[in-house]
Amino acid sequence: MTAADPLDRPVHGGIPSHGRLNKAYQVRAALLGMVDSLAEEQPIPGERQLAEELSVSRATVRQAVRDLLLEGRLTRRGRHTVAAGPKLVQPLALSSYTEGIRSQGKRPGRIVVGVNVLSAGAATAVALGLGAGDSLVHLERILLADDERVGLESTYLPHSRFPGLLSDFVPAESLYAYFRLQGVVLAEAEERIETVLPAPREAQLIGISPSLPMLLLNRTSRDEDGVPVERVRALYRGDRFSFTTRLR
Amino acid sequence: MTAADPLDRPVHGGIPSHGRLNKAYQVRAALLGMVDSLAEEQPIPGERQLAEELSVSRATVRQAVRDLLLEGRLTRRGRHTVAAGPKLVQPLALSSYTEGIRSQGKRPGRIVVGVNVLSAGAATAVALGLGAGDSLVHLERILLADDERVGLESTYLPHSRFPGLLSDFVPAESLYAYFRLQGVVLAEAEERIETVLPAPREAQLIGISPSLPMLLLNRTSRDEDGVPVERVRALYRGDRFSFTTRLR
Repeated sequence: MTAADPLDRPVHGGIPSHGRLNKAYQVRAALLGMVDSLAEEQPIPGERQLAEELSVSRATVRQAVRDLLLEGRLTRRGRHTVAAGPKLVQPLALSSYTEGIRSQGKRPGRIVVGVNVLSAGAATAVALGLGAGDSLVHLERILLADDERVGLESTYLPHSRFPGLLSDFVPAESLYAYFRLQGVVLAEAEERIETVLPAPREAQLIGISPSLPMLLLNRTSRDEDGVPVERVRALYRGDRFSFTTRLR
Repeated sequence: MTAADPLDRPVHGGIPSHGRLNKAYQVRAALLGMVDSLAEEQPIPGERQLAEELSVSRATVRQAVRDLLLEGRLTRRGRHTVAAGPKLVQPLALSSYTEGIRSQGKRPGRIVVGVNVLSAGAATAVALGLGAGDSLVHLERILLADDERVGLESTYLPHSRFPGLLSDFVPAESLYAYFRLQGVVLAEAEERIETVLPAPREAQLIGISPSLPMLLLNRTSRDEDGVPVERVRALYRGDRFSFTTRLR
């Protein structure tokens, strides 16, 4: 922090003395009040009407609407912009996507992007306890909740452990159910949670804007002997998901 | 999902048939390769030089640099843009910010924004097991790691439980250390994790762009009798923090 940092100036009521809340923020607050009073799926007024009601430019309204879309308070339904439902609340747990989504009263689904056999790179090999170049199965699926695209999941599995995967397993189904059929029991996992912007390809597959913040979960799951079973990179829409955990 | 959804078209190699990875993404990938080869704090070439080397416009370079800044791969040092260090990795745990940051080899610190007594609103009253209108202490602090502003934390405490807080407690110090001095032992907490964009005021206090995705942790902590002790809203820079947990 240098002496030139404007935030080093005194703070009054939480706003630096040089600070002003800009007009876009005031409009955002007014719009949020309006959204709070709407039922889920009810549309907000059009841009022109909002600009008149709030006595600001249409560009200012557009920015406030964009902010609330990125935060998941509003969502698009065709030509309309409507009040969004609450974010899904998923426990951080060693259970499948299927169970998690069902517990929210939603219907889980998956669209298969690809199933490929490839050679393990150095990092994946170490994480899965394999040698570099060992054969992996990579399963990439778009995650659905009530037919809405909500995420994208990449799973990497040691091919040697699941030699029949490409012929036995229906890739749109639950992988954890397949593990159980194969007698593989997941006992623990390390999970890392962060926020990222989607790559353009990911945004395209999920059908979202590349400026929508996402929750990224990287997981390595192990069986009862501590042997790594899978490495998962799961990307969830930040406007649709939240995760909970209980700390002790 | 309607029939008009362009993502309903067939997928080849993970890219919808209509899809093309745009130029900004190719430039981003090239720049990322460059950043990976730099040591922490080493600067990238200037915008003009990058535009020439990559044969694209300066606007395209600027967009790619902006993306990598938001992702925490690059960071600003005065006039220079340099390779950023890795994100901090904090365990999701019932321990203090002080301990978490120290375990990363960084020096924790806090700047006090405000300490106020206020009346509990309905939601906070329910969460803390109080009546609406009961007296609360609200403590708002900017979180530092090695003098860098990395987050903003709001803590709400029942005033009746900590009547001496305003006179005894040094608000830039560890609140959890104060709890221990008062004989209050935290036994468990429910924590909810999501990603949000900062409000302009929050962005101003932390000294970040309002388009930087943040990690928001909402926590209610309880003592050994299950009585709620605090409600915390902690906002962490998404480009500087990740959280880990172990699932069983």
